[in-house]
Amino acid sequence: MKIIVTGSTGFVAKALIETLINAGNEVHAIIRSHSDTSGIHQETKFYTDNGKSSDLVQYFKKIHADGVIHLASLFLAQHEVEDTEALVVSNILFGTRLLEASIHSDVNWFINTGTFWQHYNNETYNPVNLYAATKQAFQDVAKFYYETQNINFVTIKLNDTFGAGDTRKKVFNLWKNLATSGEDLGMSPGDQVIDISYITDIVEAYTLMINLLEKDTNYSYKGQAYVVSSSERMPLKELAKVYEEATDSTLNITWGERPYRNREVMYPWDKGEVVPGWKQNTSLKNAIQKS
Amino acid sequence: MKIIVTGSTGFVAKALIETLINAGNEVHAIIRSHSDTSGIHQETKFYTDNGKSSDLVQYFKKIHADGVIHLASLFLAQHEVEDTEALVVSNILFGTRLLEASIHSDVNWFINTGTFWQHYNNETYNPVNLYAATKQAFQDVAKFYYETQNINFVTIKLNDTFGAGDTRKKVFNLWKNLATSGEDLGMSPGDQVIDISYITDIVEAYTLMINLLEKDTNYSYKGQAYVVSSSERMPLKELAKVYEEATDSTLNITWGERPYRNREVMYPWDKGEVVPGWKQNTSLKNAIQKS
Repeated sequence: MKIIVTGSTGFVAKALIETLINAGNEVHAIIRSHSDTSGIHQETKFYTDNGKSSDLVQYFKKIHADGVIHLASLFLAQHEVEDTEALVVSNILFGTRLLEASIHSDVNWFINTGTFWQHYNNETYNPVNLYAATKQAFQDVAKFYYETQNINFVTIKLNDTFGAGDTRKKVFNLWKNLATSGEDLGMSPGDQVIDISYITDIVEAYTLMINLLEKDTNYSYKGQAYVVSSSERMPLKELAKVYEEATDSTLNITWGERPYRNREVMYPWDKGEVVPGWKQNTSLKNAIQKS
Repeated sequence: MKIIVTGSTGFVAKALIETLINAGNEVHAIIRSHSDTSGIHQETKFYTDNGKSSDLVQYFKKIHADGVIHLASLFLAQHEVEDTEALVVSNILFGTRLLEASIHSDVNWFINTGTFWQHYNNETYNPVNLYAATKQAFQDVAKFYYETQNINFVTIKLNDTFGAGDTRKKVFNLWKNLATSGEDLGMSPGDQVIDISYITDIVEAYTLMINLLEKDTNYSYKGQAYVVSSSERMPLKELAKVYEEATDSTLNITWGERPYRNREVMYPWDKGEVVPGWKQNTSLKNAIQKS
């Protein structure tokens, strides 16, 4: 298969591209002129987007891809006034341009990536932040394309992810430094439930979805949204204990020293349907040891 | 009151500004450098948007408006690849920048304008075209602002509108030319139901909504969407008869000479709640005679 991937400089896409190329697929990554492509599988083919939709259409027509995996996004937990344009352009306009190019080049399927943060308070739609709102907005724009054209558009909603090679400033990386240094860390009270998945499980969700879409000649998945969700959801405080056990280390955390952040998600959305056929393969303990 | 209005060069906003200023309000219109401001009430104050969000925030802080009426939109019945960016920028990004400026300047209420075309097939959401999809997407983005800030955001969804001074190429202008020239016109079979409202009724919906929002200290209207819908919905073919009667003229129309357009709306959405307290004041016949 020929697959176009966006967000290739990110943690999830890098791992997914690795798997896709090793399985014999041809991967085309859309990057920006300033993108750092180190660490992306060397057989990946790159296209630098110049922002012009007509050029993107021409490129798509040349590739004639089977499908698109859209993992690019601008994530900002909180935004400033001057971030507004970048959030709309990255998270809505870019995806719209990809869909436009897809329908003009007979792309068969399109896997979009959403977030649990579209569901604050476990609601059908309530965005945690502007980032999550732009993700929701893009799904609404996409509806125009899949209602009027033959394109099998689905969304996979992710919550937290982790694994080896993850350089993002997230909890396990924070704790790794903490365990090594023996320093003390003040955190929130720690009662927020964490739903975190290991990278190989995430990658599997995408490859499963690709296989389903490839066989789905009736477009029966069109417009569906699925999730990747851990079977070991637990409060942050308990997660710290699992981490200590898995790594045989001690974390010097003072719980409650910091407040929860504004619109902290205390209980991640639990109403999503998992990707058909997917289940968590790697236990949290095992995953922490591998990371 | 100080009210900021967008889309002031358009048919509806021009009439609304007239009413607002005549009622003693101070109206500030946000325009673009190339906007033609002729025909807009001469007491209107103008601000030329340069696209910079921080400048827009500064301007909003200086005005310290009570509310915003957002009527600007880029309408395209069908779009081309190269229109994609303009649709997202005009219909999503501009509104987002307005909301950003609103929350930073304590704007109390924000009336957004939507379209019946967000409801193809009378569905909860199914966009007729990309224009309608961007309207829906903007409502999603807005939810972030009204869920997290004190801003009373409502949407008024309009379908067809008409009245004196309307220069848009719409059905009544078309028929006026036809009646005068005596020429022959080929149209679609004409069974599509038309829901069209007269401009003074439209303006009244906005002024009613403003009054409700001004008194609504509990933000109880926050996130609501209302419609302006005619009590005289009828097929286009019948509308032609009403027109002939109202104007004492004959329209030489050959029905069925043209096909319906792609995704023609045969039956406009009828599930919207009208603006509280609003009802149609001007009969269709009367309105046609006044136009």
